[in-house]
Amino acid sequence: MAEFSDLDGFRAALAAMPGEDTAAREGAAERNAQLTKPPGALGRLEDVAQWYAGWRGDARPLIAAPQIIVFAGNHGVAAQGVSAFPAEVTAQMVLNFQHGGAAINQLARLAGATLDVHALALDRPTNDFTKGPALSEGEVVDALAAGWDAVDPQADLLVVGEMGIGNTTSAAALSAALFGGKAADWTGRGTGVEGDALATKIRVVAEGVALHGDQGDGIETLRRLGGREIAAMAGAIARARSLRIPVILDGFICTAAAACLAQTCAGALDHCIAGHLSNEGAHARLLEALDKEPLLALGLRLGEGSGAALAIQIVKAALECHSCMATFAEAGVTGG
Amino acid sequence: MAEFSDLDGFRAALAAMPGEDTAAREGAAERNAQLTKPPGALGRLEDVAQWYAGWRGDARPLIAAPQIIVFAGNHGVAAQGVSAFPAEVTAQMVLNFQHGGAAINQLARLAGATLDVHALALDRPTNDFTKGPALSEGEVVDALAAGWDAVDPQADLLVVGEMGIGNTTSAAALSAALFGGKAADWTGRGTGVEGDALATKIRVVAEGVALHGDQGDGIETLRRLGGREIAAMAGAIARARSLRIPVILDGFICTAAAACLAQTCAGALDHCIAGHLSNEGAHARLLEALDKEPLLALGLRLGEGSGAALAIQIVKAALECHSCMATFAEAGVTGG
Repeated sequence: MAEFSDLDGFRAALAAMPGEDTAAREGAAERNAQLTKPPGALGRLEDVAQWYAGWRGDARPLIAAPQIIVFAGNHGVAAQGVSAFPAEVTAQMVLNFQHGGAAINQLARLAGATLDVHALALDRPTNDFTKGPALSEGEVVDALAAGWDAVDPQADLLVVGEMGIGNTTSAAALSAALFGGKAADWTGRGTGVEGDALATKIRVVAEGVALHGDQGDGIETLRRLGGREIAAMAGAIARARSLRIPVILDGFICTAAAACLAQTCAGALDHCIAGHLSNEGAHARLLEALDKEPLLALGLRLGEGSGAALAIQIVKAALECHSCMATFAEAGVTGG
Repeated sequence: MAEFSDLDGFRAALAAMPGEDTAAREGAAERNAQLTKPPGALGRLEDVAQWYAGWRGDARPLIAAPQIIVFAGNHGVAAQGVSAFPAEVTAQMVLNFQHGGAAINQLARLAGATLDVHALALDRPTNDFTKGPALSEGEVVDALAAGWDAVDPQADLLVVGEMGIGNTTSAAALSAALFGGKAADWTGRGTGVEGDALATKIRVVAEGVALHGDQGDGIETLRRLGGREIAAMAGAIARARSLRIPVILDGFICTAAAACLAQTCAGALDHCIAGHLSNEGAHARLLEALDKEPLLALGLRLGEGSGAALAIQIVKAALECHSCMATFAEAGVTGG
């Protein structure tokens, strides 16, 4: 059960999060220098392995139990026509996840990850944030707690993904409120809007930001402009930190959820790596604001945790090399 | 057994290679349009799946039997001090591959790929190409045939990698001879040379290109400036085409081997995809010359097939999504 019952409790939990284990990270760096390869020849895989080792507190770890959680929610702003798909698709896709037919099902299987799906009050969309806060305090606390409680304490790597018609609109409004800039700079095509629908989407984002402005706190911004699935992702990312489970961030919406934590508590995303650069327009800008360099850039813009699920393979590969390669001494190879 | 006994026979085999199955590719494109995702939302995974389907002649294929082959060879130019490691490391690393201690062993296991290692006459380095052709016609034919025969006809995806102290020097000379430009533009740090050793390496490349020039034929250039492991990679890539096995290219040296085929027979690499962008300086230039866009860019510069082995996971993921996702009709999802 979540260790908080209101937003101040969640903020206190965030502030009390553990840091990395520097001894384990240093041990991993020492091991890396002895492996049978030229120095630095595995590029980012070496950095990833040492980052992971530090968070797990183990200089020679492997990944055995990755968990993917997909949260689904509905958005009041969808009624304004901001998506290429109708709101009923959220629930239909949840069934598709449950029946194994979506992209994330295939990617989870390939990555050897468990996949959990949580539909959050799909029959109660958030309020339209152009008219008032998207969620009450009780509602956002419930969603944060749903995310917090969804994390398996036995997992050793976490991916959170989402499904929610209208949620790139919410993520754009969150990003603009958290980092400033014009609504149009943060608003992309989502599932494929263009023309008048894209103009509507930009207007909706601008109205939301104008109404709720900069709250000076990522969590209050999350309540006013976010959604249940977005809050749940934030709650899960926070819970992973408390459990020392490294997290791979997915695309624009997941990164917006994470940004709400970063703008509440500095360093709150140090246990997170950016899995990929999405093709959703503002994701690059958002990653830059968070100083996160993506592992992959394959033009995905699907959500569901799909890009991060692909990146599980890269993180796994980094650890397999780091922890299972022979050293120069073990292999009798000259050099090092 | 290889179907050629001299270089003209190999050229004739190259010219007779099959093309893609356009009906299978079109069938894959039709299926892709019906899958439960917004159009184009899986980005490059969609292109990769359709490319693979075309080469396999199957609109809904999966990858079950990837093969990785690492070829090793020694280079006469190594005696000029062009590498940060001594030539004896080639044989030591072959033992490391055989004992499971190298990066490629870990990456092959993770990708579910078989790994075969072929050491090619390590006790007979190529001739120093600044003094004459690296290989005789008989030697290069033997190496091409070793690569040709190493491909498992039951494989459904091929990665070729290499180990050979001095072979980035050979790859730089091949690239400069095939595509023009200054020796320095094609010469990088390899395993980590700098200062005087890097200047020597550039001089050696320039001398080789000056002596052997543009032969107007990639295969003759391969004989004069290449090496046994480089010729074997070229032979394996050609054999894969004849068997309709798609190929993932690895880094600079593998791509230089492939370039020898492309400069002999237009379209010879249509069954190949670039697995990654290596951190070896001239790889980006070489991929551009071949019009190949890499799947990954993680700063690797190891060889062994390592970057391409990582990319197996991406290609597998593309096919798992393509062939196993539900269609809109199957899942009862509105849209499409």
